[in-house]
Amino acid sequence: MKTIVLLFVFAIAIATSHGFDLDHGIDNNMDSPKLRSFSRNHYDYDITCSSWRLGVEANNIIRFKTIPAKCKDYIRNYLLGDQSRADIKAVLSEAYSYAKSLDIIKAGNYTWVFDIDETLLSNVEYYADRGFGTIPHNATAFNKWIEKGKLPALPHSLKLYNKLLALDIKIAIITERPETQRKITVKNLRNVGYLKYDKIIFKDTTKGIYKGKTTLVYKSVERKKLEKEGFRIIGNIGDQWSDILGTSRAVRSFKLPNPLFYVA
Amino acid sequence: MKTIVLLFVFAIAIATSHGFDLDHGIDNNMDSPKLRSFSRNHYDYDITCSSWRLGVEANNIIRFKTIPAKCKDYIRNYLLGDQSRADIKAVLSEAYSYAKSLDIIKAGNYTWVFDIDETLLSNVEYYADRGFGTIPHNATAFNKWIEKGKLPALPHSLKLYNKLLALDIKIAIITERPETQRKITVKNLRNVGYLKYDKIIFKDTTKGIYKGKTTLVYKSVERKKLEKEGFRIIGNIGDQWSDILGTSRAVRSFKLPNPLFYVA
Repeated sequence: MKTIVLLFVFAIAIATSHGFDLDHGIDNNMDSPKLRSFSRNHYDYDITCSSWRLGVEANNIIRFKTIPAKCKDYIRNYLLGDQSRADIKAVLSEAYSYAKSLDIIKAGNYTWVFDIDETLLSNVEYYADRGFGTIPHNATAFNKWIEKGKLPALPHSLKLYNKLLALDIKIAIITERPETQRKITVKNLRNVGYLKYDKIIFKDTTKGIYKGKTTLVYKSVERKKLEKEGFRIIGNIGDQWSDILGTSRAVRSFKLPNPLFYVA
Repeated sequence: MKTIVLLFVFAIAIATSHGFDLDHGIDNNMDSPKLRSFSRNHYDYDITCSSWRLGVEANNIIRFKTIPAKCKDYIRNYLLGDQSRADIKAVLSEAYSYAKSLDIIKAGNYTWVFDIDETLLSNVEYYADRGFGTIPHNATAFNKWIEKGKLPALPHSLKLYNKLLALDIKIAIITERPETQRKITVKNLRNVGYLKYDKIIFKDTTKGIYKGKTTLVYKSVERKKLEKEGFRIIGNIGDQWSDILGTSRAVRSFKLPNPLFYVA
């Protein structure tokens, strides 16, 4: 009897060591306290703006607070020019090709997760007025802008969103925005064409369970909850690696370009 | 008694579901049988070669067997021109900045994992003679080329390798190459300057445990073994996402550009 109980405790210990809590089981490459102190804006090596952008998109360059000052014009030209639109279109077309290739059944609870800022909606206008990522983040100014509820849709994201709905795929939206911005967010989404979704999840800062936790942890936990509710996450799109890495990942995830800022 | 045994079985079931075996616990986005059938060369949407390359580097475009035929000249110019060199240099400089920022102690068993092909050594000469990725992989021809043992080092990789050794970081090499290529590989590495490493791991195809398994699974299992032996994997560099994603990841991983081919 004692042996069995001990074995049981041991089995639970194994289960827990691989299990899920807020700190462990997450990609250790993005949630290490060691790395949190690695934030910086200065590079002790020469880097072209093109290599810098590629480095950001491939998750090699992380934890920057502002983009390199010399890259302001480069990033402006990228974002306002054809290349950015072509890059976004390629990612979302690839996502749709993948979605189409699946055998979707209506009762299957197949679900696609979307991020909001720089994914469903665009803040490029905001950043255009503030040096295209060369000026440190200002939460007050940013929230004021969000509260206007005037963000445009990313046209290709809206297209994909509608096509996924037509394939009988459910939509879940998980955003870093706080509960206090729920009303204006839902209104903004509706005004630009995002009318239907099964879930919209805001970061509940009042309960404090995400205090000091990264977006990577927050979104992993919320995806886990969705899974427990029966949603089968077949796709996920965000503009940050922290939107799509972590645990309870989608079968396939897609990273939209974002050379403006970094969220851990 | 029966209840306890049942509870025990249940606990084991939980443990296994989060545990580590060859098939589970790995990024499901890269090892799903569903996705294995998703290999293709044709895109049912317009894509520029620049967006295609970014898509590959950001892990959005996967499982391609050849590069788009129209991109042959674009990829040639990229690989033989300044941009590729600048991109590689940026990744490896970032890796070194990170390594330098750590408090390395000699007894700490801090370890950096390197891949070989397109990471420590370059096969660009081989692919230049074979359409820069536009011709499907030919194992016989490729092995014949490898057996010559004449691959050059990627200059920036060799530089980083030496700098990591100078920081008292251990080196572990994990390659997809089979055991039968051990001798020529070690010789080739030595001839171009890679003289010292603590581990070099080849894919043991004779035991067959990796039969039908992806590189992602193989490398995850081998990293786990290294961890069990006491190596603390602080860094990992490869040219494929399957070199660096999966389980037992490094604290930070770096993805070198590779627009030539895809390994799952």
